[in-house]
Amino acid sequence: MSISIPKGFQWAALHCGIKQDSTIADYVLVRSVPQTVAAGVYTRNRVFAAPVAWDRQHTPTDDLRVVVVNSGNANACTGDQGWQDVQAMAASAAEACDAQVDQALVMSTGIIGEYLPMDQILPAAAQAVTLLADDEEAFMAAACGILTTDQGPKVASVELEIAGQPIRLAAMAKGAGMIGPNMATMLALVMTDAPLAAQDAQAALAAAVDASFNCISVEGHTSTNDTVLLLASGASGASPLSGESLQQFSQALNTVCVELAQQIPNDGEGSSHLITIDVQGAASRDEARQIAQTIANSNLVKAGIAGADPNWGRIISAVGYAGVEINPDQVRVAINGFDLYREGLPVGYDAAEVSTSIAGNRETSIVVELQAGSAAARFWTSDLTADYVRFNSEFHT
Amino acid sequence: MSISIPKGFQWAALHCGIKQDSTIADYVLVRSVPQTVAAGVYTRNRVFAAPVAWDRQHTPTDDLRVVVVNSGNANACTGDQGWQDVQAMAASAAEACDAQVDQALVMSTGIIGEYLPMDQILPAAAQAVTLLADDEEAFMAAACGILTTDQGPKVASVELEIAGQPIRLAAMAKGAGMIGPNMATMLALVMTDAPLAAQDAQAALAAAVDASFNCISVEGHTSTNDTVLLLASGASGASPLSGESLQQFSQALNTVCVELAQQIPNDGEGSSHLITIDVQGAASRDEARQIAQTIANSNLVKAGIAGADPNWGRIISAVGYAGVEINPDQVRVAINGFDLYREGLPVGYDAAEVSTSIAGNRETSIVVELQAGSAAARFWTSDLTADYVRFNSEFHT
Repeated sequence: MSISIPKGFQWAALHCGIKQDSTIADYVLVRSVPQTVAAGVYTRNRVFAAPVAWDRQHTPTDDLRVVVVNSGNANACTGDQGWQDVQAMAASAAEACDAQVDQALVMSTGIIGEYLPMDQILPAAAQAVTLLADDEEAFMAAACGILTTDQGPKVASVELEIAGQPIRLAAMAKGAGMIGPNMATMLALVMTDAPLAAQDAQAALAAAVDASFNCISVEGHTSTNDTVLLLASGASGASPLSGESLQQFSQALNTVCVELAQQIPNDGEGSSHLITIDVQGAASRDEARQIAQTIANSNLVKAGIAGADPNWGRIISAVGYAGVEINPDQVRVAINGFDLYREGLPVGYDAAEVSTSIAGNRETSIVVELQAGSAAARFWTSDLTADYVRFNSEFHT
Repeated sequence: MSISIPKGFQWAALHCGIKQDSTIADYVLVRSVPQTVAAGVYTRNRVFAAPVAWDRQHTPTDDLRVVVVNSGNANACTGDQGWQDVQAMAASAAEACDAQVDQALVMSTGIIGEYLPMDQILPAAAQAVTLLADDEEAFMAAACGILTTDQGPKVASVELEIAGQPIRLAAMAKGAGMIGPNMATMLALVMTDAPLAAQDAQAALAAAVDASFNCISVEGHTSTNDTVLLLASGASGASPLSGESLQQFSQALNTVCVELAQQIPNDGEGSSHLITIDVQGAASRDEARQIAQTIANSNLVKAGIAGADPNWGRIISAVGYAGVEINPDQVRVAINGFDLYREGLPVGYDAAEVSTSIAGNRETSIVVELQAGSAAARFWTSDLTADYVRFNSEFHT
């Protein structure tokens, strides 16, 4: 795919020495033009890493210059030392970019409970600055540099016209269905050259994350480091967005976030299906979401899909214990377009045909209709395979 | 083990034709003396089977005579026909025992979405009556007759003296870590010859279930058929229990329920560890329980134990996203008595030694201490192995 590179950004990636393989980048620098707006959405885990604490203090802002990312070490569960380290990491990156420490955000992902190797990280900033470039190659190098157990880079991009002016969004993420040595940290960085007010950026990002990154479930874990940042350089030359133009932008942001989020459960040697769960006809979006999430977290549903088993019983049972008042006699369950359960009873379907449909497609659709209202929610998850468990059982220490 | 057989009960088990293997019982009859007290605790799933609806209507009661159980078919998601069938099944069992239909409770477990084979089930009652006996052999036959995917019968028994009088409790359960074709139904039947008032029986059972069957987690599913019944025949000859004697009984009931409940995650070809999770020092029991359950439902924690990985990071992360306000700097995590994490930092431990301890024992202990209060909760779960997934991925239809 070709990326619509937003104006006002430069990227660099290099190997500083955190990862063992010296051919793989583990340090990424993003520099943006002055007065870049930045917004952030972070893990709700009560145990959160030092870079999350740092970024929370510094977003939203309309004065960002630098984002620095390291992969291979999460700087989580590292106490006071971790807090010192994130500040030093931000300061070194800011200094190399002629910025102030408070203009730099930090993202870290990797093993937890180990201190950052600051001897490697601090000198990397000056070297990275010499590599900065504003082209697709540099963008993709950065997209690769933030990865850990991912099988490949995850990027998404949209270009739209607002009031005759082109606006570009380009985003990168890391996170995989097959979980690494510790847990599934999800990082995402969305960059745009749209001119946004900081509060608008924050609101638009929160809404987009709610319908994308917060609707994926690999194993129900939210990690110590989960972070989604939106950077808006304003360098497109368009007039500041508001009202309808802001709406247009928000829609494009949603699209990019959904496209990126879907790639996470779809990744991983351990998974064989990307499962999309649509709960429709709910009394409220919260209820639809609660049911979709319960299905997405059900090992029995996920193992059934791995085995191409059209097991509506596991789905209807998950609907039933999701904690939402439902009337089972009004629920409809369909897999890949085949109705399996309706009005309290299984439908006469050809099980072999449905099974073949599941086995023959990487994507599986589960639709649950409640007939209780008009609200809906969509969730994505991966299936549960024996390989997934094998990868996650390996003794890492 | 030897069972302390409570007085006032008779058991019979036979093959009526639901299961394919004609050497395995699939129909169980329990007859008790007149004025037996019965209490019930049922699944909270909004999708519940016809026998659950029937039993809910008929408990608590002080006029029970019969419990009839079938295995191999859950009579769930069977609509009006299922409701007719459970009544006919109760009526046939009651009639064979010279009782009224309202004096009979029903439990079913097995495949869902299929109608009961009433031609096989209805005649079974009269035949079962001829096999009724009040000895351990009959009790064990019944304990085997309620099983589905279990590897063997699950029983527990206690005898205690209350005011110089012997009181006996004997209980059977079904439910396994390795889940059958549809889902993990859990049935349990506790029988005692203690003389109890119906409301006291209900209260004691609810409390015991809360600390036992509601504290096990195999895959987070609560099924359409989960049922725990307590029958009290009063045939011990002791005086009616109240006050302190009722307390003594309740404690014994707790013991039996915990012993039985533990056997469920401990069962199953798919699991290699029984994991006991103790959350201590919580501000409230609800919070302790919420955290224990979140750890118990974490695939990453469970897969880690399967691989003998002392992965405190996955545990502390689950503690953090359990939805309870905690201070990570005050949390302590230990596995099998080894402290791994304390005051926000990993402890210097010998990872190989902890791993050997996990690998070398079927039982794993996880202790989480919060230093936030004095409440505690204990949960049991199985580990997550590749075998578990294989068994649950097989296409069953």
